[in-house]
Amino acid sequence: MANLSDITVSASINSLSAFIFLVAFAILRLQPMNDRVYFPKWYLKGIRENPSTAGPLVKHFVNLDVRMYIKFLNWIPAALKMPELELIQHAGLDSAVYIRIYLLGLKIFFPIAFLAFGVLLPVNYTGGNFSIMSLRMKDLTFEEIDKFSISNVPPASKRLVAHIIMAYVFTFWTCYVLYKEYKIVTDMRLNFLASQNRRPDQFTVLVRNVPADPDESVSEHVEHFFRVNHPGQYLTHKVVYNANKLAKLVGQKKDLHNRLIYYTNKYDRKPNKRPTTKTGFWGLWGKKIDAINYYTEEIEKLSKEEVAERERVINDPEAVVPAAFVSFKSRWGAAVCAQTQQTRNPTRWLTEWAPEPRDVYWNNLAIPFVELNVRKLVMALALFGLIFCFMIPIAIVQTLANIESIERVLPLLKPLIEKGSTKSFIQGYLPGMVLKVFLLVLPMILMEMSKMEGYVAVSDLEARSAAKYYLFLLVNVFLGSIVTGTALQQLKAFLNKSASEIPRTVGVSVPMKATFFITYIMVDGWAGVAAEVLRLFPLIMYHLKNIFLVKTEKDRDEAMDPGSLQWPITEPRLQLYFLLGLVYSTVTPILLPFIIVFFAFAYLIFRHQIINVYNQKYESAASFWPDVNRRILIGLMISQFTLLGLLSTKRAANSTPVLLVLPVLTFSFHKFCKNRFESAFRKFPLQDAMIKDTLERATEPQLDLKEYLKDAYTHPVFKGGEVALMDIEEDDDEFHLVATKRTSRKGSQVGTSDGSPEDRTGIYAV
Amino acid sequence: MANLSDITVSASINSLSAFIFLVAFAILRLQPMNDRVYFPKWYLKGIRENPSTAGPLVKHFVNLDVRMYIKFLNWIPAALKMPELELIQHAGLDSAVYIRIYLLGLKIFFPIAFLAFGVLLPVNYTGGNFSIMSLRMKDLTFEEIDKFSISNVPPASKRLVAHIIMAYVFTFWTCYVLYKEYKIVTDMRLNFLASQNRRPDQFTVLVRNVPADPDESVSEHVEHFFRVNHPGQYLTHKVVYNANKLAKLVGQKKDLHNRLIYYTNKYDRKPNKRPTTKTGFWGLWGKKIDAINYYTEEIEKLSKEEVAERERVINDPEAVVPAAFVSFKSRWGAAVCAQTQQTRNPTRWLTEWAPEPRDVYWNNLAIPFVELNVRKLVMALALFGLIFCFMIPIAIVQTLANIESIERVLPLLKPLIEKGSTKSFIQGYLPGMVLKVFLLVLPMILMEMSKMEGYVAVSDLEARSAAKYYLFLLVNVFLGSIVTGTALQQLKAFLNKSASEIPRTVGVSVPMKATFFITYIMVDGWAGVAAEVLRLFPLIMYHLKNIFLVKTEKDRDEAMDPGSLQWPITEPRLQLYFLLGLVYSTVTPILLPFIIVFFAFAYLIFRHQIINVYNQKYESAASFWPDVNRRILIGLMISQFTLLGLLSTKRAANSTPVLLVLPVLTFSFHKFCKNRFESAFRKFPLQDAMIKDTLERATEPQLDLKEYLKDAYTHPVFKGGEVALMDIEEDDDEFHLVATKRTSRKGSQVGTSDGSPEDRTGIYAV
Repeated sequence: MANLSDITVSASINSLSAFIFLVAFAILRLQPMNDRVYFPKWYLKGIRENPSTAGPLVKHFVNLDVRMYIKFLNWIPAALKMPELELIQHAGLDSAVYIRIYLLGLKIFFPIAFLAFGVLLPVNYTGGNFSIMSLRMKDLTFEEIDKFSISNVPPASKRLVAHIIMAYVFTFWTCYVLYKEYKIVTDMRLNFLASQNRRPDQFTVLVRNVPADPDESVSEHVEHFFRVNHPGQYLTHKVVYNANKLAKLVGQKKDLHNRLIYYTNKYDRKPNKRPTTKTGFWGLWGKKIDAINYYTEEIEKLSKEEVAERERVINDPEAVVPAAFVSFKSRWGAAVCAQTQQTRNPTRWLTEWAPEPRDVYWNNLAIPFVELNVRKLVMALALFGLIFCFMIPIAIVQTLANIESIERVLPLLKPLIEKGSTKSFIQGYLPGMVLKVFLLVLPMILMEMSKMEGYVAVSDLEARSAAKYYLFLLVNVFLGSIVTGTALQQLKAFLNKSASEIPRTVGVSVPMKATFFITYIMVDGWAGVAAEVLRLFPLIMYHLKNIFLVKTEKDRDEAMDPGSLQWPITEPRLQLYFLLGLVYSTVTPILLPFIIVFFAFAYLIFRHQIINVYNQKYESAASFWPDVNRRILIGLMISQFTLLGLLSTKRAANSTPVLLVLPVLTFSFHKFCKNRFESAFRKFPLQDAMIKDTLERATEPQLDLKEYLKDAYTHPVFKGGEVALMDIEEDDDEFHLVATKRTSRKGSQVGTSDGSPEDRTGIYAV
Repeated sequence: MANLSDITVSASINSLSAFIFLVAFAILRLQPMNDRVYFPKWYLKGIRENPSTAGPLVKHFVNLDVRMYIKFLNWIPAALKMPELELIQHAGLDSAVYIRIYLLGLKIFFPIAFLAFGVLLPVNYTGGNFSIMSLRMKDLTFEEIDKFSISNVPPASKRLVAHIIMAYVFTFWTCYVLYKEYKIVTDMRLNFLASQNRRPDQFTVLVRNVPADPDESVSEHVEHFFRVNHPGQYLTHKVVYNANKLAKLVGQKKDLHNRLIYYTNKYDRKPNKRPTTKTGFWGLWGKKIDAINYYTEEIEKLSKEEVAERERVINDPEAVVPAAFVSFKSRWGAAVCAQTQQTRNPTRWLTEWAPEPRDVYWNNLAIPFVELNVRKLVMALALFGLIFCFMIPIAIVQTLANIESIERVLPLLKPLIEKGSTKSFIQGYLPGMVLKVFLLVLPMILMEMSKMEGYVAVSDLEARSAAKYYLFLLVNVFLGSIVTGTALQQLKAFLNKSASEIPRTVGVSVPMKATFFITYIMVDGWAGVAAEVLRLFPLIMYHLKNIFLVKTEKDRDEAMDPGSLQWPITEPRLQLYFLLGLVYSTVTPILLPFIIVFFAFAYLIFRHQIINVYNQKYESAASFWPDVNRRILIGLMISQFTLLGLLSTKRAANSTPVLLVLPVLTFSFHKFCKNRFESAFRKFPLQDAMIKDTLERATEPQLDLKEYLKDAYTHPVFKGGEVALMDIEEDDDEFHLVATKRTSRKGSQVGTSDGSPEDRTGIYAV
C-alpha cells in the first residue's frame, strides 16, 4: 500500500507518459506520410485524397509548416465539434452509442463524487478512529489516504449512518441515470432503424435446421414450406453452401499473391538480380529457387484447385447445408416470420432475423441443433476452467521456459544464454512475458470459444466474447486483486466460507486496495487510452507494408488498417471502471476523481478515433446496450454487497437488513429495464415494419425487390476477388453460373449500413 | 427413530385405516342417495339419471341388493378399464395427463427399486460397519433398518463405489424416462390441440395496455390499430368492462336467493308457521322479522341496484378498461398476433393468446404494466416471508389462544373452560389445531397471492400457486424435517455455513430420517389418498343441501359438488414423493417400496375419481407438464447434492468431483428439455394453424365466424342468470343492448373443451 506521496508520484509518471503519447500523436499526425494511419476513415469514405504532389519531395513525407505545429492541440475541439446526429451518419450508431458509455460514466460519477467529497470525506476524516495523538506518533507509517476512507471511522460509530444514506442516494442516482440513458438509447435505436435506407436484412429471415426431405432438395423444400405457411408474403430464398474449404483456398491464394507482389517489387527495384526463396516452411530452409516463377506456378496450381472446388460446391447437393436466407415481400412479413414458431418441433425450421450480410459468420451456419447444445455446455465448462484454472498452464509454461530447459532443448544457444545480461533477462522477464502474452491472446481465445458455440453473426460472437471477458476480468482482476491468490484458491476459500462471510471477506480488504486500484486506473486507464490514440502498431505496420507490398493506389488502400472499436475487449475493461467507481464511492471516495478523469479523457480520445480512424465491420444499431446496462447494475450490486460486508465487520450488523434492501431494489430495477426496453433491442415491432412498408410502397411503387435482394446473401467467396470468379445466380430454382469479374471492394460494400453520400469534405478532420 | 417393528406397526395401522376408508367408500357408493356424490360427472354429462322411482321408498336411499355388495370391489377394474383415448374425451387432457404423473412415478421407481434391492441392499447389509459381535451386544438398541442403509457402510470403504455407480444409473434412468414421457405428453398435447373442435380462443388474442387516445374510444382505437397492422386478418374485437362491482352484486343476490329458498322450503314443510329471521349479521341478532318477506324485499332492492350498476358499466366510458379480446379471421392470424411485438414500446399493446373463456380471471384484466411489476416484487418478498417466517404469526396465535387469554376476552366461558377435560383439550390440541388450520388455509392464501400478482387466466393462477406451494413444502416439510428447527433458523444456520457444508449437513441427517419419512408416506400418502376417494366432506355437504335447499331437479344439480383435481395442492404434494424416492434411492432403498405402493394406489384412486367425480373448470391441454418435469429434475439434483454431502462425510471426498458431474448433466438435460419441448406448451406453431385453417375452409366454407365469436368473451355477469339479464352485442362500433334471457348453465357451457356427445351410457361407472 502506498501513501499519498506515492500516489502523487505515480500520478505524475502516468500523466507524463500520457502527455508524451499525446505530443507524439500531435506531431506524427501532421506528417503527410502518416495521413492514412491517422485519418483512414476519410480515405475509406472517399473524401480525403493523397496530399497534393506539388512542392519538394520532402513535403510528401514531413510537414514543414510551422504554423501547424503551433495549433497542434486543435484536434481536441475538432473531435468534440461534430454533433451527434452527424456522428451517427458518419460512423454509425454503434460507435455513437459506444462513446455515450463514457459520457454515462461522467453523468453517474460527477454528482456522486461531488456528494461523496462534500459528505463522506469530512465524516471519514473527522472519524477519529485514530486519535490525533496516535496519528502523530505513527506519522510515518500511517497511510494518509486511509484517513479519507471508511477505515478511519471507528466500529459501531453513528457516523456509518452517513455511508448507508449515501449508498441509497448513489443507488437511486445510478438507476435514475441508467433509466434515462436506456430510454435515450432506445429512442436513438428505433429512430435509426426507422430512418435507415432499405437493407436486405430488413426483408430477410435466416431459417436453420431445415429437415431433410427424401423427395425434395433443400431449396425446393424451403420454397414450398414458406409458400404454404406464409402465403402472400414469401418472395425468394437463398440456400447456404458449405464453402468453408473454398474460402480457405481463396485465402491461401491471396497470401501467395502478396508474396508474389513482394518479390516483384523487389525485382523492380533491383532489376539486375532475380529474387530467390527457399521451398521449405516460410521460405526459411530447403532448396533455393527463383521466387517469382515459384509463386506464379503455385498460384496457378491453387487457382485450378479453387475452380474444381467451386464446381464441386455448386454441383454437389451434399454441399448445401440445411439453412437458407428467406426473403419476404415486405418487412411486415419478415417480422412475422422471425418472431413466430413455424412447426410443432421447435428444433426445426428455426427462424430468426438475418444478420446484415457483412455480419454473417458463414462457418457456423451448418451446425445442427443438438450439437449446438452440446457445444454450449462444453464451452461453459471450458470457460469455467479457463477463468479458475488459467494460472495452471501459465505456471507450466513458465516452468518450462526457464534457463535449464531452454539449454536442454537448444544446446546451441547455451553460450549465448550463459551471458550475464541475457540470463537475468530470461529469469526476470520471461515468466512475466508469458503471462502478458496470455492476457493479450485471451480475447482471441475467447472469440474462438464463442465461434465454437455456433453463433452465426459476428455481432453475436463479439457480444458473447465480451461477456466471457467481463467474467474473466471480474474474477481475476477485481476479486483477484482483493482476495489475493489465484482464482482457484479463491474459489476453494469461498466454498469453505459461509454465504454471509464472503461479502465480509471482500468488504474488509476493499478499503486496503484503494491505492492499488488508483495506480491501476492511471496505468491502464490514463496511459493506456493515450497509447490508443497514438496507434503505434498500425503506424509501423502501415509503413512496413508501404515499403514492401504497395505498388498501386489500390494496394495502398489495402495497406491501411483503420481497425475498429474492438468492442469485446474495450467494453469489459470499461465496465471495470464502473465497478471500481461504484464500489469505492462509499468506501474511499478519493478514488472517484481518477475515474472521472479517465472517463473524460477516454471520451475525448474515442470520439476522435471514431471520427477519424475506426471503420466498423458491421452495424448492430446499438444492440449491445442491454449488456452494458446489465453489467453496470451487476457492478452496483457488487458495491452494495461489499458495503454490507464491510459494515457488518464494523460492528454495525443492524445495518444488514437496511442494506439488503438495496440489491433487491437494484435487481428489480434490472427486471424493470428488461421488461420496459429490452424487446426494442431484440424484436422488430409490426407497427414500425408496416409504416416503413407503406411509405416505401407509396414512394417507390416500381421497386423490383427480388432483383434488389438477388445477391445480398451470397457467400463472399462467390462474390468477388482479384481473379475472375464465378457468381451464382438463382432463378426459378435453377442455378446458372455466370462468370463475372468483380472487384473485392464492390463485393464487400454490398449492404453497408448507409450509403448516403457524405459530401462535406472532412471538415472535422483537421 | 423407529426400528423395524415400529414401522411394521405403523404400516399395519395405516393400511388398516386405508382399508376402512375403502370399505366405507365401497358401501356408501352403492346407496342410491349418494349417487350424486360419487358419480357427479355422469350427471353433469347428462348420461346418468336419477335412480328409477319404482319399488318401495326405501330403495331410493338404501341399496338392498345383496349381490351388489359381494362385488363391492369391482370399481377397481372398472377404473382401469377405460382406454386412454376415451379418457381424454371423457375427462379432458389435463386429467388424463395428470394421472400419468403417477404412472411416471411407477416407471421411474420400479426399476430403481429393483436395482437398489439387488445391488445396494446386499452391499449395505454386509457393509460391516458394526461387526457381528457388536451387533449381538447391542442387539436391542441398534436400529435394524439402518443395516439396510448406507449408514451401515464404514467410512472410506470401497463399497461406496457401488452407490456412486448407482447414482449415475438412477440419474440416467430418470432422465431417460422423463425424456420419453415429455415426448409422449408433447405429442398428446399437439394431437389434442390439432383434433380439437373450433374454439373461440383459437381465433382470439388478448391485448392489454391499450394506450389512451384523446380522440378515440378504446374500442375504436383497438379496431383501427389492428385493421392497420394486421390487414386482412382482423375480424372483430370485444372490449373489457370493469364489472367487478356488478359481479359482486350478482353474487350477493344469489346468496339472498339461497336463503329465500331455504325459508320457503321451511314454510312449505310447516305451513302453519311463517319462518322468521333477525336483521343483524347472519341472522344471529337484531329485530325479529318475517324471513320470506324480508328476503323478497332485499332481493328486489338489490335487483334495482344491479340494474343501475349494469347501466352505468355499459354507458360510462370510464368502466371500459384498456384491454380487449381481438379476434382474427384465421388461427394463423391469431397465432401471428399473439407471438409478435406490436409497437416500439413493449409495455403497450401487449398481445398474448386469449385464455379459454371459462378460464379468464376477469378481475385482473385492468391492472397496468408498471403496477404489475411492483405487485410481483411485493408478492415475491411476501412469499419469502411466508416460507421463512410463517411460524412467527402461528406462534403468536398459539400464545393468544391459551386459556388465560380466552378467559380474559370471554369471561362468560370461564366456568366451561375450567372443567378438566375442556382445559386439557385446549391446552393439548389448540396449538396443534392452529397449525393444522393454517396448513389447510395455506393453498388459499397462496392463491390469493397469485391473484394479486395479476395473472389473467385461472390456469396461470393455479400454476403459480402450485409453484409457491412446492417451494413451501420443499423448505418446510423436506428440509424442515431433515434440518430440524423452523425455516428461519435453518436459513440462519445455512447462511453461516459454507457452500460446501450445506449438502454435508443435509447428507448426514438424511439417512437418520428415513423412518420418519416412511411413516409420513403411509399417513399422508396411503391413508390420505384413501380418504380422497371417500369424499366425506362433499358427502355431508350434499346431504345438508339436499335437506335444506333443494326443491327442484335443478337445485339438486347445483347441490352436487363434483370438485376438481385441485392441481395447485395435489401436484406439489406429489412432487414430494418423487423427491423422497430419488433422495433415498441410493441412501436407504428400503423406502422405495412404500413410494411405489403410494404411486400405484394413488393412480388407481385418481383414475376412478377423474372418470366418475371430478369436473375440471378449464382445459389447459396439459400446459403444466414443463413444471412437472422441472420439479422432478430439481428433486433429482437435490438427491445428487445430498449423496455428495453424505459421501464427503464418509471420508470419500475423492468422490466429490465424480458426483459433481451429475448435477451439471441434470441441469443440461433440463436445458435440453426446455429447448426441445417447452415451446410446444407455450406457443402455437404457424404450420398447425395453417393446416387447421385450410381444413376448416374446405369443410365449412359458409361458416360465419363473427357470429360464432360474438358472445364468447362477454363478461359472465352479462351472460346469464336467473333474472333477465342484458347482453351486449357489438356491431360496427356501436353497442346495442339486447335483453335476452339465458340460463346460467348455457352461459357457462360456451366453449367447453369438447362437445362431442358421449353416447355410451356410463359403462365405466359401475
